[in-house]
Amino acid sequence: MESSLEQMHAFFAPRSVAVVGASRKIHKAGHVIFKNFVENKMRGVFKGEIYPVNPHEEYILNCRCYPSLTRIPGELDLAVIVVPAKYVPKVMEEAAAKKVKTVVIISSGFGEVGNHELENQVVAIAKKAGIRVLGPNCLGVYDSKTGVDMLFLPETKVLTTGDEVVATPRPMPGNIAIVTQSGAFGVASLDYLAGKQMGVSKFVSFGNKCDVNEAEMLNYLLYDEDTRVILLYVEDVKDGRKFFETAKEVTKKKPVIALKSGRTKAGARAAASHTGAMAGSDQIYDAVFTQTGVLRAKDMEEFFDTGKALAMQPPARGKNIAILTDAGGPGIMATDECELRGLVVKRFSDETIHRFEKLKMEGKLPKFATNLNPVDVTGSATSEMFEVTAEILFQDFEINGVIVLGLHHTPALQEDFVDRVAKIANRYDKPVVACDIGETEMALQTRWRFDKLGIPAYSSPEDAARAMNALVRYGLYLKKNGCLEGYIENFLKYKRKTATS
Amino acid sequence: MESSLEQMHAFFAPRSVAVVGASRKIHKAGHVIFKNFVENKMRGVFKGEIYPVNPHEEYILNCRCYPSLTRIPGELDLAVIVVPAKYVPKVMEEAAAKKVKTVVIISSGFGEVGNHELENQVVAIAKKAGIRVLGPNCLGVYDSKTGVDMLFLPETKVLTTGDEVVATPRPMPGNIAIVTQSGAFGVASLDYLAGKQMGVSKFVSFGNKCDVNEAEMLNYLLYDEDTRVILLYVEDVKDGRKFFETAKEVTKKKPVIALKSGRTKAGARAAASHTGAMAGSDQIYDAVFTQTGVLRAKDMEEFFDTGKALAMQPPARGKNIAILTDAGGPGIMATDECELRGLVVKRFSDETIHRFEKLKMEGKLPKFATNLNPVDVTGSATSEMFEVTAEILFQDFEINGVIVLGLHHTPALQEDFVDRVAKIANRYDKPVVACDIGETEMALQTRWRFDKLGIPAYSSPEDAARAMNALVRYGLYLKKNGCLEGYIENFLKYKRKTATS
Repeated sequence: MESSLEQMHAFFAPRSVAVVGASRKIHKAGHVIFKNFVENKMRGVFKGEIYPVNPHEEYILNCRCYPSLTRIPGELDLAVIVVPAKYVPKVMEEAAAKKVKTVVIISSGFGEVGNHELENQVVAIAKKAGIRVLGPNCLGVYDSKTGVDMLFLPETKVLTTGDEVVATPRPMPGNIAIVTQSGAFGVASLDYLAGKQMGVSKFVSFGNKCDVNEAEMLNYLLYDEDTRVILLYVEDVKDGRKFFETAKEVTKKKPVIALKSGRTKAGARAAASHTGAMAGSDQIYDAVFTQTGVLRAKDMEEFFDTGKALAMQPPARGKNIAILTDAGGPGIMATDECELRGLVVKRFSDETIHRFEKLKMEGKLPKFATNLNPVDVTGSATSEMFEVTAEILFQDFEINGVIVLGLHHTPALQEDFVDRVAKIANRYDKPVVACDIGETEMALQTRWRFDKLGIPAYSSPEDAARAMNALVRYGLYLKKNGCLEGYIENFLKYKRKTATS
Repeated sequence: MESSLEQMHAFFAPRSVAVVGASRKIHKAGHVIFKNFVENKMRGVFKGEIYPVNPHEEYILNCRCYPSLTRIPGELDLAVIVVPAKYVPKVMEEAAAKKVKTVVIISSGFGEVGNHELENQVVAIAKKAGIRVLGPNCLGVYDSKTGVDMLFLPETKVLTTGDEVVATPRPMPGNIAIVTQSGAFGVASLDYLAGKQMGVSKFVSFGNKCDVNEAEMLNYLLYDEDTRVILLYVEDVKDGRKFFETAKEVTKKKPVIALKSGRTKAGARAAASHTGAMAGSDQIYDAVFTQTGVLRAKDMEEFFDTGKALAMQPPARGKNIAILTDAGGPGIMATDECELRGLVVKRFSDETIHRFEKLKMEGKLPKFATNLNPVDVTGSATSEMFEVTAEILFQDFEINGVIVLGLHHTPALQEDFVDRVAKIANRYDKPVVACDIGETEMALQTRWRFDKLGIPAYSSPEDAARAMNALVRYGLYLKKNGCLEGYIENFLKYKRKTATS
């Protein structure tokens, strides 16, 4: 590992960590963060040493307290700073004296409120000492594997009824990394992903990014084995050149999906008063994202939906999409959305149509099933019909991706159609996404089963089409850069590995 | 009631109904539909007489069976026909002889598969006898109040595990009507609305619409007391002139939201092979919708989200939107979406900014809260902060609508902020929509509580902005046509009535 990568690694897997501003008061961030480390250590997840730093306490949660960083014995990989902004330079001096590798400054009250001088002071100390800094004004790091967890927002809240409810959940471990400029949006993302049962590898909130920025984070995650997809929320990009160079390399191996807010004038004004972001022209961002292969999502839902698609499916080798449905209307809706996004839902080849016609004659498809694309197995759909139809579509070399609209409501359709479709899909390296519409039991179960079997499922035909669009766009980018086949090969290797592990 | 309206009323509240093709076989549509009527009658919901028609049975579900419509004693308001297509003309002749008022033809096998002659035959008989026909090739009617329920799709399914799960639920009674050309999308809508706890007044699937079409349905629903909002899914509109004239009148009193698929060439081709729809140019539809005040949704989610907004909130008197948030990033995202849709998120007036500054000096808002629009009460947000800030926004006469982004994750925020905001909102006639991000316990509860208190809540900032956009677009249309104030007055009257009932 390069030395800079190794240093970055200390943010995610420190052998020793100090929490400066650790507290016994349960509502304080310094308490919650320290407690997270202690609990994860007790559960055997966090393996490093933990030191609370607070000159006013002797013990916190049974751990011996230190009056300052310099008094801690041994080497220190990471210091998490939670003290008020004005004390931070002093703590940084101590960190420098202690030769701490990395520092996360949770505290706010710096550049984002106009205190640029204070922030510059911190940066100067860090630079001189060779310390890498995350923050200030951030939520820091959450790593589902190493047990590093700096999220100080209450994991549960107690309602006036006395009920305790989940407020800021941690998602299950997985292969999606979240890198975010907005802490609030960051935790909201975790809440979203936890509820949608999408797994997260690493979470980084970098706030004012006085030192470590999005480009370095992307570079670090490029080498992170647990991360397959990177979700990036930004309001501005500070070092455009470096971002450009880095993103271009990262996207050859791992998809990066960006949600860049401050697109409009009013939005940019809001961003400026939020993190002091100098948003710049949105067209420039668009161009940079396009040229570097970063997939730009146009809203929150597309952001997560795209991440899900790329975490679970290989990119497409072309734009030709087949739609398999048991519901005419939703089939049209998906067709529209595909075409509006630049995908092609063209009439199937004569050969494929002929194969469908043969199935009709054999009684394996309803006589009146339409089969030009979409292929509509109608309200008489059975699991077998989905199976035989899917097989034909995956075999058709003109088709680059398949959208399966499996609305569960049709009377004869059994829940095993999902497994049957997945079994076929697994034999090919063509991307497939699915949709079932509804928000009650069977719809939720159908989508969940698709997800479970590696086919990302969505709750509307348009969402499914947009997910497929992302798989196509990414595939075209990789193809243009000569790395599509290598990516697909790696992806399939990864998929086989995770399927057996 | 006009005589034509009265006749249409027989579809939804027949005093007597016959199911032609009623069956004892539990998987048959003729069984399920007949059983729905019988069960709703036993529960005291359906109040009319029910007659099974089947020459091969003596009794079905304890009801005396009739060999044909003409043998049924007394008047017959409605006949539901479930027999194979080829027998339908004969049944129609009997219906004519019996002077049946209305007929729903569930059976498929007509124009949608090229059997235009058969369909024309049916129409000719109906015309001559003055019978109004819904269908063929449709799911018919579901009325949450009268217990008319022709949905033959299985309400539950039994999985291979032996578990019985909800498959096609009925939503709770409410004020949203669904009118749909696609039956499959229709039931999917019910599933969606049931899960999202959005109430439905009436559901009509009109399939091939050989007689009764969308225009007549809109006109009927205009006079339906239980319906406040109409959701219309169409693939084509048959009688454009009539639709134009009717929609123009209906939208003055009730919002109509249209999801019109077949927008692209490929989509139109798919629509043509689905219901034989001649989609026509999408630009023409766009123009018609705009001129008649029909709000066109660009996808399924916007379709439902818009319906929810207009069912719960009055339209806006102008385009100026205030955003109240406790999360900077999501505030920017909502701002962007508003502006991209043509709404205006402009800097607050000096007076309003001054009022916020005063609150800061009094310690009632965080010192670093930004307050130009969005107003960001920051991660230190409390319920009181939401309350005092909302009050100022509702009082600001420059502001036409308020978006509340209440992300529950912030440590000090109590769940009662929802009630406090709702209490203030209720004192004004300005629309408000809300958002909390997340898919676990507290996020779901927060959104649910907003909904419960009449503030439509959404799961992303952009969805909330789009919902507000619908309230603004509708408001502007009504204003242009001189009926905004009357609409708002009626809306508030209705809201007060339903709040106390």
